[in-house]
Amino acid sequence: MKKLINAVDAVLAESLDGFAAAHADILTMGEERKFVRRRTLKPGKVGLISGGGSGHEPLHAGFVGLGMLDAACPGQVFTSPTPDQMLAAAEAVDTGAGVLFIVKNYEGDVMNFAMAAEMAGREVATVITDDDVAVENSTYTTGRRGVAGTLIVERIVGAAAEQGRDLAALQALGEAVNGRTRSMGVALSSCTVPAAGTPTFTLGEDEMEMGVGIHGEPGRRRVRLASADAIAEEMLGSVLKDLAPRRGAEALLLVNGFGGTPLMELYLMVDSARRVLEGAGVKAVRFLTGSYVTSLEMAGCSLTLSLLDAETTALWDAPLHTPALRWGA
Amino acid sequence: MKKLINAVDAVLAESLDGFAAAHADILTMGEERKFVRRRTLKPGKVGLISGGGSGHEPLHAGFVGLGMLDAACPGQVFTSPTPDQMLAAAEAVDTGAGVLFIVKNYEGDVMNFAMAAEMAGREVATVITDDDVAVENSTYTTGRRGVAGTLIVERIVGAAAEQGRDLAALQALGEAVNGRTRSMGVALSSCTVPAAGTPTFTLGEDEMEMGVGIHGEPGRRRVRLASADAIAEEMLGSVLKDLAPRRGAEALLLVNGFGGTPLMELYLMVDSARRVLEGAGVKAVRFLTGSYVTSLEMAGCSLTLSLLDAETTALWDAPLHTPALRWGA
Repeated sequence: MKKLINAVDAVLAESLDGFAAAHADILTMGEERKFVRRRTLKPGKVGLISGGGSGHEPLHAGFVGLGMLDAACPGQVFTSPTPDQMLAAAEAVDTGAGVLFIVKNYEGDVMNFAMAAEMAGREVATVITDDDVAVENSTYTTGRRGVAGTLIVERIVGAAAEQGRDLAALQALGEAVNGRTRSMGVALSSCTVPAAGTPTFTLGEDEMEMGVGIHGEPGRRRVRLASADAIAEEMLGSVLKDLAPRRGAEALLLVNGFGGTPLMELYLMVDSARRVLEGAGVKAVRFLTGSYVTSLEMAGCSLTLSLLDAETTALWDAPLHTPALRWGA
Repeated sequence: MKKLINAVDAVLAESLDGFAAAHADILTMGEERKFVRRRTLKPGKVGLISGGGSGHEPLHAGFVGLGMLDAACPGQVFTSPTPDQMLAAAEAVDTGAGVLFIVKNYEGDVMNFAMAAEMAGREVATVITDDDVAVENSTYTTGRRGVAGTLIVERIVGAAAEQGRDLAALQALGEAVNGRTRSMGVALSSCTVPAAGTPTFTLGEDEMEMGVGIHGEPGRRRVRLASADAIAEEMLGSVLKDLAPRRGAEALLLVNGFGGTPLMELYLMVDSARRVLEGAGVKAVRFLTGSYVTSLEMAGCSLTLSLLDAETTALWDAPLHTPALRWGA
């Protein structure tokens, strides 16, 4: 295992310490590193909290800040955070308007956030994201997996929260955005969880895992490496079949790298994806390209399409200031 | 070779097309893809142009926009752009105040930019960056290599250009910033140039290349994989020895991934680097962490330290709006 680390059991703590130091203008770390939270809270604003296993950076802690999350709870690599982390985060960011949990659909995450919601003794609502069209049930999931589309939900709901919407409205908005957002991914290589020390799975020299999950869990099938155009057609084909957008629909295209794929290839995938979208009569009016929801150093990418209307486009564009995404602020 | 591509000879063109489509609000592509340039030019502002081989994305095209470059000329992967690209870019962005070339110190780049400067028939000045302390001469270089510190020069000079400084002042500023900026890198794996199809070099299971260049060219020595702390000590030790900052000096710390290293490890390197800087009495007052000057999918990172004063800190913080970096705008 080749990684820039000191000791396997210190990876998360040391990475969080570096992260908190580098972004001290935006955020601060909670006690015992249970959560990362915005340095400045807005009284009366609903508190947005997400979290999950680490190894997907910048998701979620990299999205804490103005116009997105108020706090993020980091678990160990690919391991759910615990309910006491979520309780401490809720205590820290609830300014009286309640708290919204945004949770990727994995059994451990869903269970622990549900437990925290029950124990919180405050107003809590939850949005579960499940944007991955690749498979219905999976290694850690009943139902579809929550993957890269989660950041779009966090962002759009985060912008609406900033405008003062109440908890019920934000929950409804989050569910609506999740319902209009679909993703699918492909892996060209595995990743290695530090505590395991060996690759999560193995692929032949000319194989790829079509429909892979963000923990390296199996997708639909293992096939021969295909061209970027063929990959975009299969992944967006599945996404479009599921979303069934009308011709002329406007959308956000997120081309997300899994951690080991260079930006040059991600932009090439943008080009391939555009051809598929044009063929389907869908107009990409917003683009986000980069490694935002990763699987450590896994090579590959996911394509996410999120249908936009005037309201969600304006929310996407609203001022945003987080470690990983920033505009208009 | 496992890459998200269609055909080896279409990689650059298709990647540029995707890039230009995704960032059409900021920039536009020149004829025959000779350059990428800012959509809106500021009359009377000196035009800032950089360029170099592709495969280092987001450098340079990802830094075209308000507060940084006016144009970037992309060569084929790890291959210098040609003088006619630079001439076309100069023609496109010179609004009467002349043009500044910012060039990484590689023989091909330096020669071609010099040829373009001579042929341009307009006022041209050049800043050569050579921030890499690892080796004096190298595969493609007489003198030190220009690496990740180049983006700091592009940014600070870009902000000053936005304020209306003249060509001579910008050239002097660029040289001063380059003189206060030092970098060193380490590779944990090789990269594969698409046209070559096989890895540029090979490393054993527990080896790293200390002082590697951004084309995978040799560094100082090949050694056993060390801890993040030991790597930070060696790399920043060399940087600090060369810069010789006074105790209490303020600096920008850039922890730059080479393309295949996850953000989680880069932030861990921030933590290691901070310990070294604290020991040296240097105060990191600005941080930039991410894969900004890459070598395709190479695993590893570089550490760059750039000494700041009140003027350069303010320029670093000024409004910036490019595809890869954005703040205050």
